[in-house]
Amino acid sequence: MRMYDLIIKKRNGKVLSKDEIDYIVKSYTQGEIPDYQMSAFLMAVYFQGMNERETTDLTLAMAKSGDLLNLSEIHGVKVDKHSTGGIGDKTTLIIGPMLASLEIPVAKMSGRGLGFTGGTIDKLESIPGFRTALSREEFIRNVNELHIAIAGQTANLAPADKKIYALRDVTGTVEQASLIASSIMSKKLASGADVIVLDVKTGSGAFMKTEEAAEDLARRMVSIGKLSGRKVTAVLTDMNEPLGQMVGNSLEVQEAIQVLRGEGDVRLNEVVYTLAAYMILGAGAADSYEQAKTKLIDVIRSGKALHRFAAFVERQGGDPDYILGKKSFAKARYIEPVFPERDGYLADCKAEEIGHAVLILGGGRETKESVIDHNVGIQICNHLGDTVHAGTPFAYIHGNSPDQVEEAKQCIRQAYTISEEKPSPKPVVKKIIE
Amino acid sequence: MRMYDLIIKKRNGKVLSKDEIDYIVKSYTQGEIPDYQMSAFLMAVYFQGMNERETTDLTLAMAKSGDLLNLSEIHGVKVDKHSTGGIGDKTTLIIGPMLASLEIPVAKMSGRGLGFTGGTIDKLESIPGFRTALSREEFIRNVNELHIAIAGQTANLAPADKKIYALRDVTGTVEQASLIASSIMSKKLASGADVIVLDVKTGSGAFMKTEEAAEDLARRMVSIGKLSGRKVTAVLTDMNEPLGQMVGNSLEVQEAIQVLRGEGDVRLNEVVYTLAAYMILGAGAADSYEQAKTKLIDVIRSGKALHRFAAFVERQGGDPDYILGKKSFAKARYIEPVFPERDGYLADCKAEEIGHAVLILGGGRETKESVIDHNVGIQICNHLGDTVHAGTPFAYIHGNSPDQVEEAKQCIRQAYTISEEKPSPKPVVKKIIE
Repeated sequence: MRMYDLIIKKRNGKVLSKDEIDYIVKSYTQGEIPDYQMSAFLMAVYFQGMNERETTDLTLAMAKSGDLLNLSEIHGVKVDKHSTGGIGDKTTLIIGPMLASLEIPVAKMSGRGLGFTGGTIDKLESIPGFRTALSREEFIRNVNELHIAIAGQTANLAPADKKIYALRDVTGTVEQASLIASSIMSKKLASGADVIVLDVKTGSGAFMKTEEAAEDLARRMVSIGKLSGRKVTAVLTDMNEPLGQMVGNSLEVQEAIQVLRGEGDVRLNEVVYTLAAYMILGAGAADSYEQAKTKLIDVIRSGKALHRFAAFVERQGGDPDYILGKKSFAKARYIEPVFPERDGYLADCKAEEIGHAVLILGGGRETKESVIDHNVGIQICNHLGDTVHAGTPFAYIHGNSPDQVEEAKQCIRQAYTISEEKPSPKPVVKKIIE
Repeated sequence: MRMYDLIIKKRNGKVLSKDEIDYIVKSYTQGEIPDYQMSAFLMAVYFQGMNERETTDLTLAMAKSGDLLNLSEIHGVKVDKHSTGGIGDKTTLIIGPMLASLEIPVAKMSGRGLGFTGGTIDKLESIPGFRTALSREEFIRNVNELHIAIAGQTANLAPADKKIYALRDVTGTVEQASLIASSIMSKKLASGADVIVLDVKTGSGAFMKTEEAAEDLARRMVSIGKLSGRKVTAVLTDMNEPLGQMVGNSLEVQEAIQVLRGEGDVRLNEVVYTLAAYMILGAGAADSYEQAKTKLIDVIRSGKALHRFAAFVERQGGDPDYILGKKSFAKARYIEPVFPERDGYLADCKAEEIGHAVLILGGGRETKESVIDHNVGIQICNHLGDTVHAGTPFAYIHGNSPDQVEEAKQCIRQAYTISEEKPSPKPVVKKIIE
């Protein structure tokens, strides 16, 4: 087999066999295929695409390229959730304890954030004492005893994907649906979950700007799941504005606690309940969506979910008093209101700009080496479609330097468009694909 | 300027500016753009193409990347001919002396052959004593005195094209019309001719298999010529069978002499007269095609062209007696007839296979280091459309080893299809594009 022939084959719109795809992934990862041939191949894929079978074969080949997590020592159906990334997404912090309190095992290896979207690990580390470095034994024991553990990613998952992604990133071959789908799914398959619920975000703050593109990606990932023997459900959700009111590490943990108390933002609640219900269905712990939802409402009303969060935090070294409201999270030095430029409706939001503003405040990572300020962030009090008044703040900046606060304020004001006409409402859960 | 952005721009079907193309060619040649970005870019060009202006800018950028030959010391309009490559193409050996005897300067830097198509330099070296290594002074003096000199290529012409072509060759990005056109034309522009006549071949033995593809390529090259201030005419010629009867170095020189004597193959004569007439017109040495053709017939009838060939050979160290028929070229040890498999019409020829057969006999170069056997080759006595009889040879193999002769014989028999119905005739000159 020669890479040259496979480039030509794909360039000419032909379908590659499983052996051919295995050869490409294996030989490229081992350094036997040079970057310049791989990048030409990826550009050919950009134009000619891959069918479902090819995409699945690519996914499996990349999944097999490194460690495959063995979760067999964990009792029960392992359920995982993955989000394609958005601003203010703290759903894992809420859904984890909800499912754990229903005795559905949540064994989550999570990454740190980079760029505009925060990572679950970073958010959890804003709880004093919390540690995410767990030994394998500790991780598995915690899941079996508490039904929840969240650890930093240490295994060498899908190194082929890592190497291919790095090349795509510099050769203009990122935005291709089969390549995106296989990149996400290869890591999910390697991490060993039986059931995967995907939160595919669409809108100005998401990787997929249009609903069509997001739906296409979702269908591809569901198909990969089916063809590789995992149960995958995708939920298309809106990311034209941040999810919930809070963006920033400690602020997002506090908003998660609010939801676990039965309060909190209505759109955030809707996404949380939808994703969690499909995870329960996937785990076989309910017969219908309604039954799953009832169970979720129960664990919130009874306080079980909140107390499971506290127990989980304590087990991983954190102080549960912060979760149960006995102690207050540290605040940023400056909390400054942001006023809208004029009266009107919040009509449009460049959601990425909110993430950008948090980066300005020091709440995110611009490079892998950046140190995060956990207490900074932004509260957005209104949703798109709400009326705002020039004299009433619609947002607050939490920052530790006056200059950064001022810059973030400008950023937030520029992110929103205010119109005189009421915009049509955008539902937060758009579609279920399974 | 960043290569990443230019890859995306071309990938998205946008038109690149002259500055952007200059940046790509210069930075890649200097090693500042890595191969993996260049190959992704080339694959994007494969799918999105380039317009006439981009193609011309690419051509000029590559032409400027190395030496630009200065032919200003040569008197008169410098006329050059370029063939896109075919089997049995010895037209340069014939047209050179014809034009020189009309005092039109022929200053030809020529390459050696590689693969199926022989090089002019290799063919000339089958004349005992002939040398192609000329100093610059000697080259220019010969052209000014004899109106003809043919030397091996020593200048560093269009190194950008050389580097880019090497990458295209291993990344499946050769077959793109703008890239092919700019590759050919960059070398032609760098070599300093005022007038260029292109012989664009089409058919089974040519790079361009279909007439449409050949015509598209021809139009692009003519357009590049216009936009860069050179006069370019393209002649589309048939390459579904070898040009003339002889394929092989010494055999082709002998066939060239035949034509210069006013004899020889009718299709070869037609291509020679057409190309030469357009070169004369380009040089301004005739008012009409008919007048140009009359002049050509004159120099053949009078023997002027043949004697100019002899004088040129002598000036470059070769023995003119071989040209004038006073000495005979050395023959291969074995000359074996090839019989058709049955009676019928020669209906179809895989012309590349004829080139392959000559390679088998040792008459070509498989790698740059191969040593050529000048005396081997193949004579094909019939054209497509001719009737052949099982008892009458339609070809002869000239070889120096029985095994090679046998293998070449099989090759020739398999190359031709014999049918019971007379195929429709294929004119050898298909179209003029200017």
